[in-house]
Amino acid sequence: MDEFILVSVKGVYMINTINGLTPMVLISDEEGKIMPIYVGMPEGISINSALNNEVTPRPMTHDLMVNAIEGLGASITDVFIDEIHDSTFYARLILIKNDSTIEIDARPSDCISLAIRTNASIMVCRSVFDSSLITEDELEGMMTLDSLL
Amino acid sequence: MDEFILVSVKGVYMINTINGLTPMVLISDEEGKIMPIYVGMPEGISINSALNNEVTPRPMTHDLMVNAIEGLGASITDVFIDEIHDSTFYARLILIKNDSTIEIDARPSDCISLAIRTNASIMVCRSVFDSSLITEDELEGMMTLDSLL
Repeated sequence: MDEFILVSVKGVYMINTINGLTPMVLISDEEGKIMPIYVGMPEGISINSALNNEVTPRPMTHDLMVNAIEGLGASITDVFIDEIHDSTFYARLILIKNDSTIEIDARPSDCISLAIRTNASIMVCRSVFDSSLITEDELEGMMTLDSLL
Repeated sequence: MDEFILVSVKGVYMINTINGLTPMVLISDEEGKIMPIYVGMPEGISINSALNNEVTPRPMTHDLMVNAIEGLGASITDVFIDEIHDSTFYARLILIKNDSTIEIDARPSDCISLAIRTNASIMVCRSVFDSSLITEDELEGMMTLDSLL
């Protein structure tokens, strides 16, 4: 069985790709090793907003999802990022309701956005993490999404 | 008590505002009267995608929300668009679980995106609808979001 490691979200950064300027979420393990996950712009903004504890006048989409899940008596305990195929990461949202556990297939970007809002643990499969690392050099000069907003 | 009318979603259109090209969802009653709701671009794309029955390789944010709600044994039966203050519409998502009804405060854009995906009824308060109508003339030459994607 795969080992999972607890990670924290370092921030949302922007990187130039062939598709133009793209948001990238950087997550790090407790040793400070860093793994990037490319995300869409709306998801990048949503994650950034959660990291900054921004309070919006109306519930944004991920706020609504948390409110719906909690309104149904469930809570988000963990998200697992556990596979990568063709540069696409696969993740699972773990919901606990009474003593039942419900797993929902999801994209890492949605999972991370929800996890920050609910203090759920973000767990990454060790082999996926180790195969996706970037170095400090690659980070140099990278802009934060905040600096563009 | 306010009367509510059932509406259908006519499409996502683009309109020039002082903030630039902005998506607008047009909803209509059974007489064909039309009311616009301005939405954000991510929500506009999400609604458009649902209207086109697009199937994406990975669950998009509103698909995930539907999967989470249904995974918890609940369903979305209706959404109500019931107030407008300072040009901002307020809405409620209605979830049914067993025999309980749960109402969640939401933006109309998220509600509409979820309603199309689940065939939930979209209900608008009669007084809100009647005060927000636009004419056929105002629609002339308006582009669909589809034509820009």
